Amino acid sequence: VAATVAVGLGAIKRGLASPNGLATACKPLCELALAPTSRIELGGHELIGRTPMETADLLHRRSGLFGERLLARVRGDLREFQRNIRPGTAIGCGRAIEELSPRPRGARSGTAQQAIDRIRRDLRDFSRRNRLDRVVVINVASTEPLIRRQGLPDRWAALDRQLGKRSGAAPPASSLYAIAAIQESMPYINFTPSLGCDVPAIRELAEARGTPIMGSDGKTGETLLRSVLAPMFRARDLRVLSWTGHNILGNRDGRILAIPANKAAKLSNKEQLLASILGYRPHTHTGIDFVESLDDWKTAWDHVHFEGFLGTKMNVQFIWQACDSILAAPLVIDLARLADYHASRGGRGVMTHLACFFKAPMGVSEHSFAKQVDALHGYVQDALRR
Amino acid sequence: VAATVAVGLGAIKRGLASPNGLATACKPLCELALAPTSRIELGGHELIGRTPMETADLLHRRSGLFGERLLARVRGDLREFQRNIRPGTAIGCGRAIEELSPRPRGARSGTAQQAIDRIRRDLRDFSRRNRLDRVVVINVASTEPLIRRQGLPDRWAALDRQLGKRSGAAPPASSLYAIAAIQESMPYINFTPSLGCDVPAIRELAEARGTPIMGSDGKTGETLLRSVLAPMFRARDLRVLSWTGHNILGNRDGRILAIPANKAAKLSNKEQLLASILGYRPHTHTGIDFVESLDDWKTAWDHVHFEGFLGTKMNVQFIWQACDSILAAPLVIDLARLADYHASRGGRGVMTHLACFFKAPMGVSEHSFAKQVDALHGYVQDALRR
Amino acid sequence: VAATVAVGLGAIKRGLASPNGLATACKPLCELALAPTSRIELGGHELIGRTPMETADLLHRRSGLFGERLLARVRGDLREFQRNIRPGTAIGCGRAIEELSPRPRGARSGTAQQAIDRIRRDLRDFSRRNRLDRVVVINVASTEPLIRRQGLPDRWAALDRQLGKRSGAAPPASSLYAIAAIQESMPYINFTPSLGCDVPAIRELAEARGTPIMGSDGKTGETLLRSVLAPMFRARDLRVLSWTGHNILGNRDGRILAIPANKAAKLSNKEQLLASILGYRPHTHTGIDFVESLDDWKTAWDHVHFEGFLGTKMNVQFIWQACDSILAAPLVIDLARLADYHASRGGRGVMTHLACFFKAPMGVSEHSFAKQVDALHGYVQDALRR
Amino acid sequence: VAATVAVGLGAIKRGLASPNGLATACKPLCELALAPTSRIELGGHELIGRTPMETADLLHRRSGLFGERLLARVRGDLREFQRNIRPGTAIGCGRAIEELSPRPRGARSGTAQQAIDRIRRDLRDFSRRNRLDRVVVINVASTEPLIRRQGLPDRWAALDRQLGKRSGAAPPASSLYAIAAIQESMPYINFTPSLGCDVPAIRELAEARGTPIMGSDGKTGETLLRSVLAPMFRARDLRVLSWTGHNILGNRDGRILAIPANKAAKLSNKEQLLASILGYRPHTHTGIDFVESLDDWKTAWDHVHFEGFLGTKMNVQFIWQACDSILAAPLVIDLARLADYHASRGGRGVMTHLACFFKAPMGVSEHSFAKQVDALHGYVQDALRR
Repeated sequence: VAATVAVGLGAIKRGLASPNGLATACKPLCELALAPTSRIELGGHELIGRTPMETADLLHRRSGLFGERLLARVRGDLREFQRNIRPGTAIGCGRAIEELSPRPRGARSGTAQQAIDRIRRDLRDFSRRNRLDRVVVINVASTEPLIRRQGLPDRWAALDRQLGKRSGAAPPASSLYAIAAIQESMPYINFTPSLGCDVPAIRELAEARGTPIMGSDGKTGETLLRSVLAPMFRARDLRVLSWTGHNILGNRDGRILAIPANKAAKLSNKEQLLASILGYRPHTHTGIDFVESLDDWKTAWDHVHFEGFLGTKMNVQFIWQACDSILAAPLVIDLARLADYHASRGGRGVMTHLACFFKAPMGVSEHSFAKQVDALHGYVQDALRR
Repeated sequence: VAATVAVGLGAIKRGLASPNGLATACKPLCELALAPTSRIELGGHELIGRTPMETADLLHRRSGLFGERLLARVRGDLREFQRNIRPGTAIGCGRAIEELSPRPRGARSGTAQQAIDRIRRDLRDFSRRNRLDRVVVINVASTEPLIRRQGLPDRWAALDRQLGKRSGAAPPASSLYAIAAIQESMPYINFTPSLGCDVPAIRELAEARGTPIMGSDGKTGETLLRSVLAPMFRARDLRVLSWTGHNILGNRDGRILAIPANKAAKLSNKEQLLASILGYRPHTHTGIDFVESLDDWKTAWDHVHFEGFLGTKMNVQFIWQACDSILAAPLVIDLARLADYHASRGGRGVMTHLACFFKAPMGVSEHSFAKQVDALHGYVQDALRR
Repeated sequence: VAATVAVGLGAIKRGLASPNGLATACKPLCELALAPTSRIELGGHELIGRTPMETADLLHRRSGLFGERLLARVRGDLREFQRNIRPGTAIGCGRAIEELSPRPRGARSGTAQQAIDRIRRDLRDFSRRNRLDRVVVINVASTEPLIRRQGLPDRWAALDRQLGKRSGAAPPASSLYAIAAIQESMPYINFTPSLGCDVPAIRELAEARGTPIMGSDGKTGETLLRSVLAPMFRARDLRVLSWTGHNILGNRDGRILAIPANKAAKLSNKEQLLASILGYRPHTHTGIDFVESLDDWKTAWDHVHFEGFLGTKMNVQFIWQACDSILAAPLVIDLARLADYHASRGGRGVMTHLACFFKAPMGVSEHSFAKQVDALHGYVQDALRR
Repeated sequence: VAATVAVGLGAIKRGLASPNGLATACKPLCELALAPTSRIELGGHELIGRTPMETADLLHRRSGLFGERLLARVRGDLREFQRNIRPGTAIGCGRAIEELSPRPRGARSGTAQQAIDRIRRDLRDFSRRNRLDRVVVINVASTEPLIRRQGLPDRWAALDRQLGKRSGAAPPASSLYAIAAIQESMPYINFTPSLGCDVPAIRELAEARGTPIMGSDGKTGETLLRSVLAPMFRARDLRVLSWTGHNILGNRDGRILAIPANKAAKLSNKEQLLASILGYRPHTHTGIDFVESLDDWKTAWDHVHFEGFLGTKMNVQFIWQACDSILAAPLVIDLARLADYHASRGGRGVMTHLACFFKAPMGVSEHSFAKQVDALHGYVQDALRR
């Protein structure tokens, strides 16, 4: 995703592509005084030794994305991004990540607190060197194994103490980045199903510091469609008997999700959404299969079996064929701009108005996409009125 | 549809079926003081000699609807309905209807005014014999050929004069029923793509008389899905390049729609909706093919080709397999109850709050299903507050 | 399946249904002097307490099969079938079967030899009481857990000795029926993925006795389509990169297949077929999900990703929506007639000419459906020439 | 197609691509002593001013085919091909072709005989300049409007006389190329649904001259699948009630096929095939819709409604998403090599053994793809045995 964000920002800046696909470039969001995309600088933490340019080349060769000419012209932008990348931390990322080849660069040694301190230094350094007004930290790493947040203390003071110890449950990497960002007063957004900032102790820290946070799990494909379609069944009182889905995909995300522990995190978000919208729990099943030949292209087949008037059974099926990173990248840019805007206006705590971007929006129980979009538009109207 | 409405009302009244599929049986609509379904009496005008029981039997034998036991137990209800059926008028129904075998019973002779007078007598008679508080007239006949409303006078006074003449453009049957109903102060709803009450002169009459009206074209299947999905493409700025659909169905509706003139009326509603929601006009094509073996089961395949970030082309396809009359019947019951409620509260003119039921809602430019449902729920909240 | 076979034979005998769907009623198979369907008598062994009539009623009520009128008229045939049903044996059927409710009637106590002896008595008794010329035994029971045939002795003499012991690996029920049938000189056919007669020692017995046998696993739906489509990819040198399938179904078969051990037997047949036809092993994945609301209706979605000229990736997807027992029942009747015919002509051993009916045809490495049909037609021509 | 053939031959010759997708590179066809692909020279007639390089660039830019690096390296091969291209004739190509912009270069003036004479000179010239052993002429032009061959004389002598006249029915361009090729003793193959050599008088000429000919209409996508699937319905006695297809495509082929007269030629081949394989005529409907955004990618949705045992209705649907020119190009190369081989062995007249390549194979009533492939393999075995 990060490489696609970089290619996209470079292409838009150089007039090689329209900002199509960016909700923040359209009405009504574009009416807010958002930071121009041309002024965004990219940095990051990374475990794999691959550079953004290498990733972009791979996406082009294997998945047919971008053009060779486009890639040639944004090469400079990707190099600049590369200069801002530092080794990440692999704490709590699970065996799948550790066993990647080439070996991840991020050290697993040291305490969580040491990792946080290092991340904070990197963030400050990135901000200073690029003379930035504000840094927004967005987690776009591979999904971590499902971790029970129950193992972590509920209060920040207790969690804070634990971070310095060498034993006991440590929060996963996604949460360490969250803590670091919050402590640096940099808005943090979790675009993955990993734990991130969705821990009571970390939310407490964000509230106390007044740092905006939001998550989790970007809503890009099958789940987006589910959050669009499911409200119709409810409005028409068509009773969903079963909702079965099967996803096939071939990128690294798919490889990681083929591992049961990592898949569990993803699926739990997908299935809770249906029950929440429908008001009851139909039979659901969501399969994920790693199919290497598909590369970044993802195909989802969903079969919805439903019962209408006089108990008549009917069905609708959809097939979604789309490119994961192409769907995710503009959302990441939108989120960065909207979080920056919110922070610039003194906003703090959980940004519930951004629910429409997430599969499991923090602090929001409404899962209908249309209603979530209404909420975001309501926020815009309020902001413009002020 | 009418036969399915009768079977359904009978089954619910006798406790043989739950009211599943009726939006008026669910929150929030059920909170209105609507007429109980058990107190609804059915009547109608018909061109074909088939009785409701014969139609219900056919739906059972050919399409697998209802059970034999259920049909046996609602036989009395269907006979009662049959007693309230009168021969209709075939004026303006097109050659497709005239060539049906057995021959339509409705006379084509006489002036439009004579047909209206006869319909009004039938309606009054139906009301009186059944001691009804209110009659709601709903057009569920086969689609008429597309008629240019431009041929008709814009003012009621002029149209009224023309109705008595033997020459000159006459409104089609759907409009004659509308005039009759409005003049009897009975709410009129056009559930078909036919012209009905969507003529300036007839709207003028309805406003003057204070009779509630609404239409056109019940939103049951493919178009319902389009009005649910299309807003997502707009919200995410995914540019729809083409939206192609192909429908196959085997009931009489399908046979009529296989005739180009009749099909034209249907398609124009389907395609305007997309342009209205998206804000631009993508390539669209909607095919309809009559496949007798499918009977009342309708399959729609839709292919949406869209462009996302960096001009990347992706697609989503859906396949909808449902039973037309089973989807339409509960909407007809819902509309009858809601129109009755509206009239009982002194409501008048175009019932724009019912837009979510229609492919081409009169007086409403909003085509997003979610927003239309919001509008209906807003109406309910206002009504409950009073 | 057995109940559907009984309803079908009754309906055809009474002229209530055409023999549509029976390959043996069509050219060229109908040119053989096969036993008339009206002279077939049904019997069986059963573990569940449900009668054929109850099963047929359930299929009607839940899955919409048969008509109430038809069921009423074949009631006598189903009762007669019921009279010929005896309690089966549950040896080796796995926990899934044992935990069925109501509890299976078949005893699990005693040695395998005792079970075989009892089955042989039942078979002789069935033959005598109905004055039959020949009995064909067909296994249509639920799939047993995958059993390694390696645990069983390779020679009949050794296996025979082991059957009488109370300890050591025993063959599963499907194999015990096979042994009993072969010893009674009754042709045995395994329509399921269970082990059945596909054990070297049992094949040795069949060859020695001269009893015709065949299996395994009736080819009815998704796998049938695969054996039809896959040869095209080979003939056109379109390289299959991945072949992913997902099945959803709601009958007892589906419930049993939701259990991993039982599913394994099924899947191994499905996936070996592709490699065998294509000549290489593409990525394959076949999911099965039990969706109760679908009852006997099964939906399979298959996605084939393939590479053509100049490495271009393309795909084809199919969706198969069919009724399992309706597809299987005529094959069972066809197999009974063809096995009877073969035995009547002195045929013996593995009936390789019946390969087109099976997912994993014994003694046949050709998996292309077209070539298998050619082989069967060749057999017919040879038989007619004699 | 021609540009893709040129890119492909260049890429294979230079070792930039494997011959994947060429049936003649696989067993058993590769066992024949076929001309090596590296020795094939391309020439042609063309109406549009676009060069092969421009077409290849368009396919790359719009449809994502080939790579920029690959295109750069075969640039010389495409230039060489360009040098061998001459202006074609537009006689009988229909208004669709004439109205293309930029205007077709081919003259419509002069008699058919003059056009033939010019084509023959071009062909001889091409052969001489490139010092070729043999020329095979393959029609890959856009589909001509459906022409009734009844208008043309049945005997060659009569047709020959007519060709020189300025009035009266003239054969379309595809037939003029056929006549020219046959008279030059160059095998002629019609890869399109146009009339070509499928005229009694022209077949008479081919038989008399001993020139091999074959056609019509390359079987690449939806129809290929139909000829693979339909035999299964027959073998299993599953009665096809309806077979409905809808195609969407965006290349020039699609633009031409959007014109009713041109579409008619295509559809008649597609639908006759089903009736021929099944032995009866189910309801069929095949729609074609031009969707510009799809470019060379074609999507076909087919819905097959069928009836099985006891009159149970079931269905299978497939969605085919493939690239037209990528599927067609290797067939064109295969046909060229096989026609050359046949001619080199003294073969003459209609090459019925090539039926598996065509939707409407001349002189062959067998439409099952599997049986057609068997026939081709039989030809290979005979040839090898000699």
